Formats: sequence, C-alpha cells, structure tokens
Amino acid sequence: MSNNIKIKRALISVSDKNGIVSLAKILRKNGCEIISTGGTKKVLQKAKIPVTDITKVTGNPEAFGGRMKTISFQIESALLFDRKKDKDEANELNILPIDLIVCNLYPFEKVKQENASLEKLIENIDIGGPTMVRAAAKNYKFVGVVVDPADYQNIGKEITENGGALSIETRFELMRKAFNHTADYDSLIATTMDENANKRSLRFAFSDGNKLRYGENSHQKGYFYRKNNSSFSLKDIEVLHGKELSYNNIFDMQAAIESVKNLTKTGCAIIKHANPCGLSEGDDQRKVFENAWAGDPVSAFGSVIAFNETVGKETVEFLQLDSKDKFKRKFIEIIIAPFFTASAKKYLFQHKNLRIIQFDPKKLDQQNDMKFLFNSLLFQETDNELFKKKKIVTKRKPRINKELFQFGLIAIRQLRSNAIVVVRKLDSGDMQLLGMGCGQPNRVNSTLLTIDKCKENLKNEYNGPSEKFDDYVKKQMEKVVLFSDAFFPFSDNVELSYEAGIRTIVQPGGSIRDKSVIRKCDELGVGMIFTGMRHFKH
Amino acid sequence: MSNNIKIKRALISVSDKNGIVSLAKILRKNGCEIISTGGTKKVLQKAKIPVTDITKVTGNPEAFGGRMKTISFQIESALLFDRKKDKDEANELNILPIDLIVCNLYPFEKVKQENASLEKLIENIDIGGPTMVRAAAKNYKFVGVVVDPADYQNIGKEITENGGALSIETRFELMRKAFNHTADYDSLIATTMDENANKRSLRFAFSDGNKLRYGENSHQKGYFYRKNNSSFSLKDIEVLHGKELSYNNIFDMQAAIESVKNLTKTGCAIIKHANPCGLSEGDDQRKVFENAWAGDPVSAFGSVIAFNETVGKETVEFLQLDSKDKFKRKFIEIIIAPFFTASAKKYLFQHKNLRIIQFDPKKLDQQNDMKFLFNSLLFQETDNELFKKKKIVTKRKPRINKELFQFGLIAIRQLRSNAIVVVRKLDSGDMQLLGMGCGQPNRVNSTLLTIDKCKENLKNEYNGPSEKFDDYVKKQMEKVVLFSDAFFPFSDNVELSYEAGIRTIVQPGGSIRDKSVIRKCDELGVGMIFTGMRHFKH
Repeated sequence: MSNNIKIKRALISVSDKNGIVSLAKILRKNGCEIISTGGTKKVLQKAKIPVTDITKVTGNPEAFGGRMKTISFQIESALLFDRKKDKDEANELNILPIDLIVCNLYPFEKVKQENASLEKLIENIDIGGPTMVRAAAKNYKFVGVVVDPADYQNIGKEITENGGALSIETRFELMRKAFNHTADYDSLIATTMDENANKRSLRFAFSDGNKLRYGENSHQKGYFYRKNNSSFSLKDIEVLHGKELSYNNIFDMQAAIESVKNLTKTGCAIIKHANPCGLSEGDDQRKVFENAWAGDPVSAFGSVIAFNETVGKETVEFLQLDSKDKFKRKFIEIIIAPFFTASAKKYLFQHKNLRIIQFDPKKLDQQNDMKFLFNSLLFQETDNELFKKKKIVTKRKPRINKELFQFGLIAIRQLRSNAIVVVRKLDSGDMQLLGMGCGQPNRVNSTLLTIDKCKENLKNEYNGPSEKFDDYVKKQMEKVVLFSDAFFPFSDNVELSYEAGIRTIVQPGGSIRDKSVIRKCDELGVGMIFTGMRHFKH
Repeated sequence: MSNNIKIKRALISVSDKNGIVSLAKILRKNGCEIISTGGTKKVLQKAKIPVTDITKVTGNPEAFGGRMKTISFQIESALLFDRKKDKDEANELNILPIDLIVCNLYPFEKVKQENASLEKLIENIDIGGPTMVRAAAKNYKFVGVVVDPADYQNIGKEITENGGALSIETRFELMRKAFNHTADYDSLIATTMDENANKRSLRFAFSDGNKLRYGENSHQKGYFYRKNNSSFSLKDIEVLHGKELSYNNIFDMQAAIESVKNLTKTGCAIIKHANPCGLSEGDDQRKVFENAWAGDPVSAFGSVIAFNETVGKETVEFLQLDSKDKFKRKFIEIIIAPFFTASAKKYLFQHKNLRIIQFDPKKLDQQNDMKFLFNSLLFQETDNELFKKKKIVTKRKPRINKELFQFGLIAIRQLRSNAIVVVRKLDSGDMQLLGMGCGQPNRVNSTLLTIDKCKENLKNEYNGPSEKFDDYVKKQMEKVVLFSDAFFPFSDNVELSYEAGIRTIVQPGGSIRDKSVIRKCDELGVGMIFTGMRHFKH
C-alpha cells in the first residue's frame, strides 16, 4: 500500500536553515535516517542530530566548488524507482529508497533583488536541488518532497501523529507545490536571462481560481484568480454578508476602491459600470454619503459603493433599508469599507442580498496595469499622478481651492475617456461631484452629459421660491469647476460650459488649437488652468 | 578563451527524432564524438553514425524502465565543471567535458492533449532531460544546449562555418531559450497537477516586449508583449506605413478588428476610444465606408478604421487626402485591412503619419478574455454569441430583416455598457449604424445620446425642401431598429424611443418589470423583440 509511506530515510539539503533542526529531530525520533550535505549537515550535527554524509550514499565527492553535491545515479535512483515494479532491480543495484527530501533551492530571487551581476546570478541557479525536487515529486506515490519551510510544522505534526508516515494526500499536495515551485524558479530565471539580453518578457502565475456564476453575461463562463506570491490581492477582500459576487461586481469593486483610495478626508464613491457617478469627501461620513448619492440619484440604485474609513450606523441609515415605504429603500449591490461598526453591520444585514465587504483601499498599491488583447499584452504603469504644473492661461485668474483642485483631478482620472466632470465645494466645506460625462467618442458629448446632470441635480436641491431657479443655477454654476481628462480640441466645449454658467475650467492643454481655446475663454470671461497632464483611461 | 567553444563531445537524447541525423552528421564531420541513449542511439546507428553508448560514460546501466538514463555524477559533472577553475579536479575525477547537448523533453504537452490519465501524465514528466538542459545552460560559458529542433539548421550551419565551434553569443541565446523551455515545461506540469487536484491555476508567458512611446498617458511607461506559443497575435500585424503605434492605438485596433470580424458582407468599423461610432456592411466597399463615416462624422476624425476585405483605391479616395482644401482632407489615425491594393497603398502613403496595417480579422479567434485587477485576474470566455431566441413580445409584430437583426446585435455587443444602438437597412440594401450611446451609468442617457446622434445624422443627409425635415425624420425613424445591450429596467426608454419615432426595439428581456415595459410598448404601438441574451461589455 502506498497510501501511507513510513519515512525511513530522508535527505535534507536546504539553503534556508530556519526550522530545519526541529523537523530533523522529529524525523530522528521516528527512527528516520538523515542524509545531508555541506552546510545543512553542519547545522544538524551542531544540534547533535546524527547525519549520514551524502558522499557515503553517492560514492562521489562534493565537487567543483559545490556544483556537484547530490546529483548521482544513487540519489536520483533512490528517489525515482517504483517501490513495487522496480524493487528487485533496486536491490541488485544496491539502491536504498529515500522516502522524503527536504530541500530549498539556491536563493536566486534574493540575489536578483540585490542587483547581482550576471555571473553571480548564474552561480545561484540551482541544478541539484530542482533535480531532486522534481524526481521526488514525480515519484510522489512513494516519496514526500518539502520545499517550503512554512510546511515543516504541519509535516512534523503529521509524521508524529501518523507513526512516522506521510499520507498519499499529503504527498500529492507536496508534489503540486513542488512543481509550482520549480515552475516559479525557472520562470524567474528565464525572465532574468531575457532581461540580461535586453529582451523584455513577463511570466505570471495565478491560482486559487474559483468559478463565478458566469462572466460578464450568463452565456460566458467566468473565473476569478489570485496572483501568486502577492502579499495582498483583491481576492483577499473579506465578504461579511450577501449574495455571491459576480464578475461585474468584482470589476466595479476595483473601480470603487480606486476612486476613494486617494481621497484625503472621509470619502465615498458610487460606481456604476466601472465609472464613479457619485463622489464626495469631507468631515462627516453621513453627509459625504448623501453628497455622493446626490451626484446621480437615479444611477446610484444598484451601484457599488466604497468608503475609505470605518462605516458607522448613521451613515448607512441613509439607505433607509427599514423603511415601510419600499420606494424609500435604497437598493445597492455592494458596500465596501475598511471596517464596519457592529451596529452598522447589524443595520446592513437587514438587506439579505447586499454584499458587505471589508477591504482597506490603502492596501491597493498597484503599480502596473495590464490589458490582455488578442494573444498579446499591453502593460503600463498605473496612472498614479495628478498634475504636472498648475498654470493659469487666461486673463481671468480663477482662485481654485487646493482641495477642490485635487478632488477634481481624482474624479477625472477615474472616469472612462472621453471624460468631463464638474465638481464643487459645498458651503459645508465638503467636496462633491455634481455631474459627469464619460465613455464618449467625442468630448462635446461628455460636456453636454455633464451639464445636463448638473442641472438635474441642482433642480433636485433647489428649495424655491425664495429665489428663482435660474438665478439659483447661475449662482451655483459660477462656483463649480469643470475638469477635462484630455485637451479641448476645439473651443466648442468652452462655449457650452460658458452657456451653462461655468466660469472655471481645468484641462491638460497641449492641443495645436490651445491658442484659440484660450482666446475663446478670454472673450467670454472664463478662467482656464492647464495641468500639463492627460488622464486617458479606457 | 571561452568565446568559441569547439564541440568535441556532444550528448544527444531526443524524443522528437526529426532532423537529428543531419545535425549528428555535421557534428561527426567536424570530428565530434557523439554520446547517446536508447531510442536516439538506434536512429543514429541506423544512419551509420558512430555513437558512444551513455552507459560507457556513466558506468551505470539504463535503469528502472528508463527513468534513469543520463542522471549521473559523470554526465552532470561533464556539463557543469568550470573549464578553467575546475580543470585539474575534472582530470583527477576522470571527467571529460561535454560541450553540447541536444535534448528534447518527454512530450508532456502532447500526452496532456490526448487526455491521458494522471498516471500516464506523471510517467511523461522528464527528470533527466531538464537536469541536463539546466546544467548545460548554467554552464553556457563553456557548453551549448539545443532544445528546439527548429534550431538544428542554424546550429549545424554555425558549426560548419565556424570550424566545429559555437560562439558565446549563440551559447547565450541557447541558454535563454533553454531556461524559457524548462520554465514552460514545469509551468504546464504545475497547472496540470493543480487541475488534477481540482485547483484552478493559470500561468502565462509573454515575450518580445517593446517599449511604447508611453502608456495611456505620457507620464505612464508602456510596453507591448506577445503571448508565448501563440500561432497568431495582435503583435503580428503588418505595419506598412506610418508613425509608431501608441498604446491607445493598439487598444483601439483590437476593438476595430473585433467590430468587423463577424460581418458577413463587405464591412467597415470606425473606432473612437474603443467604441465603434460608425459601422456598416454591404456590397460596395466605398459606399460602406461612407455609410460608416456618416454614423458620426465628427468623431470619425482621428479614428481607427477597420475593413474586413481587401481595400481598393476607390474606397480610400473618400478620405480626400489629396484635396487642395485642407478642411476636406479626412484625418484618421489608423486604417486596418486584410490587404491593400497597390494603388490604395500609393494613395494612402500620401498621408505621412497615417498608420496602414494589414491584419485579417478572420485570424482573431480569441476564446478568452481577461482583466487584470489588483493582484487578481478576472478570466472569462469571450462573448462569441449573438442571441438565444428571437421572440416577439408585443401586439405589434415587427418584421425585422434577418441581416439587420444580426448587424444590430454585432454592433451592440461591441459597445461599452450601458449601450444603445440604432441601425437601419438603407435603400441600397446596406446596413448602417445610425447612432449609438455607450459607457453610461444609466440606460436613459445612452438612449438620449443615440436619438440625438440619429437626428443629427438625418439632418446631414436631409436633402429638403421636397419634403419637410420632420416628415423625413419620421419616415426614416420608423424604419430603424433600436438595440439595447441589457434589459430595460423601466419603460422610460420605450417612451423616449417612441417620441423619437422609433417603432422597433430589440432587447434581451429578463427584467422584473418586463410586463410593464411590454404594456407600454402595446400602449404606444411599438414592436419589441426579446433575444434572451445580454451583452454587457466593460
């Protein structure tokens, strides 16, 4: 039976010596012979653990400055032979089985991080280690292979509890881990050598994939994977409550988290189809939520909402989930925050389907952005900046509040191109997205969409009749700032903005028609600021 | 000097025997001793090439059903020792250098494609091969390693022309290839073993990366890579002319190619910010181009344009690149087609910056679609279908032309959500996108954008005054069909469409308010078709 394999002989050869003594002691306690090499042998002997020198097994010396230690007919045979079929042959050839190897590979990655020379990198490519690891993994039906010090404790425990043996299930898992390890190891070597030849290559591994209900649409299968060796991933969100996350939920979540991550005060973003249709920051979370909602109270229904701070009950009561009037209950898909208070959670749990998710946007430190096209990859640095240089280019010199300037840039950076956004500082001091237009084939469309939304929202907040609606709009629009993600190709956007009452525009500049755009501003008395930085996003 | 290494001894052990005899003959002709194993040896001996049996070198038998053939102190020492530093040690240990190995690994991939059992897969994991390959690669300063039969010819040529030697440059390239090969090999093994454990994992490799001028914006670095082992990639486009492609160009190109690939007749797509703002198909390419352009003549400037058939001169003359009136010249960024006639090319070459690209959209057969989020991956099947079931749900029974139905679905599938598109069949029989709205947080926005664009375009084509403009619009709008990428959540979209004169609507259906939407259609005399298939795209 190969179900349990009693570990009678183990080979230990590790570059990371942490934890190896404890494991070796457990093996000895269970009557296991330990074969070892060079540095590992010294550490074990110092801990008074009897060790068989590998040269006794191989019959060969350690040679060529350590390049040859384990590789031999004897060691790899001991790992590879079939304990049933090849038993007699092994006997004839004097090969005794090795039942376990514990091996970490030369630290190529560490050496690479130290910007080592090509020569040093090459010297740190392990040959003997991967050979043993791969041989043992191939023969997992009879042999265990441990490559990760993090596994020593569990392996030690199983050996102790299992009469010195490892189960087939454990050996299979160790085999999977071993091949993933050698795949990672050679992947890093391959890309490093490419780099040295000035050839750009990338290798990625993703695991822990789960099947989603479906992809973007129900006729498409969909899956969600975690990137290997990442300290933190979107897959690590903590789902406190609610229905299973869909493909589109996950995509919107990333946009929601991105939208609030750079806000400096208490912030809230409301996402629909990957674009923020509501965004606000200020001092009071409940007010900020209300401000964000007011950015597009129609689209906010069914949205994905993110906060950048612990969410309290008062904030979420705005959703009126317990209202007897079902039309007052604000249905949303997902709410994300770094933390929810107990009372906020209790309140939100009333809504059976609502997904409640803990994730700290500060943990989102993605440096790269990738688009997978037809058997190709577009790879870029994330757009982590806001502006290059703030330069007033018109006769009118707008005095734009510093926080509002930053808030507007965060909003426009997050919207899909072509994008326009109008933001304002409320009397309370809070910042608010008042209207946006995005995803358009031309900038005029986005400007029109934005203006329409601003007017609609001003209508909603208009208290009348102490002042005329038109006067109210005029007064409000004079205070807002319009941001464009890219330059104005023509002055038509200035005219439309002006007609809507807007007096301050921020755009990157850089068009061949900048002069005529500025002339139009001067003619109409509009103030314009150039930032020198475009924010296309697709 | 390690610059040139004369190949005095070579080890050949290949699973793919193609081309191996010719290479071995060249080696022999240059005085090289050939060491070989099992099947390879037989093939070489049959071709009358003298071969040293590997057991003579190792002193060990081939053992354990072939699991042990090459792995030995002798072979790996011969590959690994430093020809300078370790010379004396090698002498003492009777190790003669091996200067070249030619090795293909066990065909794990092939066996996998044959849906082999786990046992058979495991048996096809090569241990000795990767050990030799990695050892030789590590010692590339002195050893050559050939893993790909496609390289035999060049290697043979170099050996012949170079007095039996390989240069350091060649050995370095072979080393890079070797580590990429073992990385690929173990990557496939690792994901296969994960699969067997019902753990979903993915590994990708991209190479041939080139630095773009920048990413989506000038403050972001950008790169473009080819997916390894793909028979055809977007990187394989043939650039005939023009400025360097930008990050955004490449992204738009994919959208352009996707837009025309499923059109059954002569087709043209005009892309702005990844969305088709113009689309048409018919019999005459010039007319089709004009129809597509008329879909959004403002946004078409600076667009990316794709055709699905060979482009002729008459078609591109529509751009009026040679017009003396510079306002008549239609500036576009990119034109893509499977082929351009010589006269079309000559005409287009007038425009210095215009990128002219050959790529057959039929080659775009992508089955998967991926989004990289924060250290995670959303993976899905491509949206390759159009509709589930065509079902008229209203009293009014619209008789929609079959080609137009398909054309509308192709258009709506390609637009970013939320999306609405209006299409029509022209008197000529051509299909045309008359207006679209996309990328909106709510569907009403998209409907309004679409209707506005339709009216604007009808104004452009209106010949007046033989009939009143309003009558013309009414007549035209009655013939169009409006498509929605997802269900109508409310009946407001029906009302807006009706007011614009639209009488036929196609949408997936599936809302809890379908009944009230249908009721509204019946009340207004609008015909509605359900497709049962949503086409969200983000």
